[in-house]
Amino acid sequence: MKIDVILKEATSKSYVVSIDELDKLEFDTKVAIVTNTTVSSLHLQTLLGLLHVKEYFVITLSDGESYKNFTSLNYILEACFEHRLDRKSLLIAFGGGVIGDMTGFAASIFQRGIDFIQIPTTLLSQVDASVGGKTGINNSYGKNLIGTFWQPRAVYCETAFLKTLPPREFSAGVAEIIKMAVTFDKPFFEWLETHDLSDEANLKIAIQKSVSLKARVVALDEREEGVRAVLNYGHTFAHVIENETKYTTYLHGEAVAIGIVMANKLAFKLGLLTQEEMKRIKKLLEQYHLPTTYTIPSLEAFYDAFFLDKKSAHAKIKFILVSSIGGYEIRNDIAKEIVISALKDDNA
Amino acid sequence: MKIDVILKEATSKSYVVSIDELDKLEFDTKVAIVTNTTVSSLHLQTLLGLLHVKEYFVITLSDGESYKNFTSLNYILEACFEHRLDRKSLLIAFGGGVIGDMTGFAASIFQRGIDFIQIPTTLLSQVDASVGGKTGINNSYGKNLIGTFWQPRAVYCETAFLKTLPPREFSAGVAEIIKMAVTFDKPFFEWLETHDLSDEANLKIAIQKSVSLKARVVALDEREEGVRAVLNYGHTFAHVIENETKYTTYLHGEAVAIGIVMANKLAFKLGLLTQEEMKRIKKLLEQYHLPTTYTIPSLEAFYDAFFLDKKSAHAKIKFILVSSIGGYEIRNDIAKEIVISALKDDNA
Repeated sequence: MKIDVILKEATSKSYVVSIDELDKLEFDTKVAIVTNTTVSSLHLQTLLGLLHVKEYFVITLSDGESYKNFTSLNYILEACFEHRLDRKSLLIAFGGGVIGDMTGFAASIFQRGIDFIQIPTTLLSQVDASVGGKTGINNSYGKNLIGTFWQPRAVYCETAFLKTLPPREFSAGVAEIIKMAVTFDKPFFEWLETHDLSDEANLKIAIQKSVSLKARVVALDEREEGVRAVLNYGHTFAHVIENETKYTTYLHGEAVAIGIVMANKLAFKLGLLTQEEMKRIKKLLEQYHLPTTYTIPSLEAFYDAFFLDKKSAHAKIKFILVSSIGGYEIRNDIAKEIVISALKDDNA
Repeated sequence: MKIDVILKEATSKSYVVSIDELDKLEFDTKVAIVTNTTVSSLHLQTLLGLLHVKEYFVITLSDGESYKNFTSLNYILEACFEHRLDRKSLLIAFGGGVIGDMTGFAASIFQRGIDFIQIPTTLLSQVDASVGGKTGINNSYGKNLIGTFWQPRAVYCETAFLKTLPPREFSAGVAEIIKMAVTFDKPFFEWLETHDLSDEANLKIAIQKSVSLKARVVALDEREEGVRAVLNYGHTFAHVIENETKYTTYLHGEAVAIGIVMANKLAFKLGLLTQEEMKRIKKLLEQYHLPTTYTIPSLEAFYDAFFLDKKSAHAKIKFILVSSIGGYEIRNDIAKEIVISALKDDNA
């Protein structure tokens, strides 16, 4: 005996990413603002001055990737229950990627899902994490291994918040901008080679370009079954580096910069990328003082750690490689020996 | 400056509920079977004899609603990481509603979502919890307050597993069957008045009928924005009773039986239900030895607790009332005094 359960098709979802339009923000529901101690002391007053909300409260977490865990998630949820948020309430993520990912995750599981808005305050989260609906926390097995897909209702990128960013964090954001250009857009890469992002007008163009590229990719493939995986260029390596260094040595974007260089060595070994292109990419990363080398303690352990990454379905590692600047190739057929030999290659 | 993010429409989801067809189950991916100590000792060998799987492991939890919490959820997730499940792996929920809700929740957040299958072993979960995709855990603020909507890939209802059910648990399942009939299907209600569900053939008909009714409702309204709320008939009261008695005095279906009688008192007070109909419903519940009364310690506290229930958006309580048997009315405009006076009414 069989009974069919057929669910009505979900309607198409869409949202808007606004740049420098925070003053237009308005809500008539109860709002919880999730932030961290650093962002709070620098920018919370500015935000509260701009918000038009009926009733709000602030949840302040400690600052750092090491707090992106079940304990913080629970803390957010408990505060929401304590303040009696309901299904019509709204969460605002006010901070970098850590705050955005955790707030989105909390929104997706609070009473089986409520709305949230991203107000990213770092360059990294403006150009990357805030768009695309990936939420999550880390655990002892790795980064973002527990989470959901939950799209924000809107994203507000405000360049004013970037003025207080420490130089390292600014550069970490540039790493993701470079990543977008290298994999998807050669003219943008060439523009980056000749335009300094410390200039505000240039920066705004770069943010707009990166977000547009990312939005296009996510629109095509929300659940990362195809092209969205390309956004992980450099990340397969970066996640292992971050895990090995316990998320304390490198900022995410810095680890990505190293990961990009590692992925390029592999692409070079496979004949996908020329030595000249590899050098141009590395040079652009170095222009923003990003790290590009990492001494791997044990190549075997490093390789083994790939298999814990959630992107490796059925124990096949998926490598995102650049096939000349502006193009990409997704490969899951590369022999262990080739990977290890590429990682050893200091001349590449 | 604005950028639109438009996500491609999700494809229509569907799955099959099979009754007594467990022998047809087959998988070629790594499988984690989540169960509890009671179900494991009674039925795990039977299940393993029927399953055609390549590689599996078993996660066994303690039995009971009080274990439906973050700790158990974390335990399931940690075991999945330890056994290196990946995005193509499958979870099987093998147990009652508690196991089903937690396994579904774990599946929905493990690496941002993997497949799971329901094999409900109680009557309650066969006719109710296993269909519809609601997942969740309890916390100190109430029941199912944290969770997701995540549909199973398939549901297998096997009447053989019901033979070992304690009579109280069997009756608790019957309460949900009665609920479906009272709100949606008068001929089914009348059939129930004249057919004993301890007869296996009758039981199979009742399961099939209940699941079909529920599947139709869920298909129309997955996220409970309309008609699906009717499935909560009796539940607004039941959740408060369960919370006040700390989930230890009543089985969920028993609390629902009491909740149905409370909801009917309110419907009677509002002229929606006749005294005769109210008595017929109560009589059918009592035929299965279900509790129909509960001494409320404090009416004020009882009423106040409604507002913590996730179904009450913007502090309006949504009551699901029966408007003569086989029909329903959703009301969020009932004054506190009327509710309290209905709850006081012992003659109704």
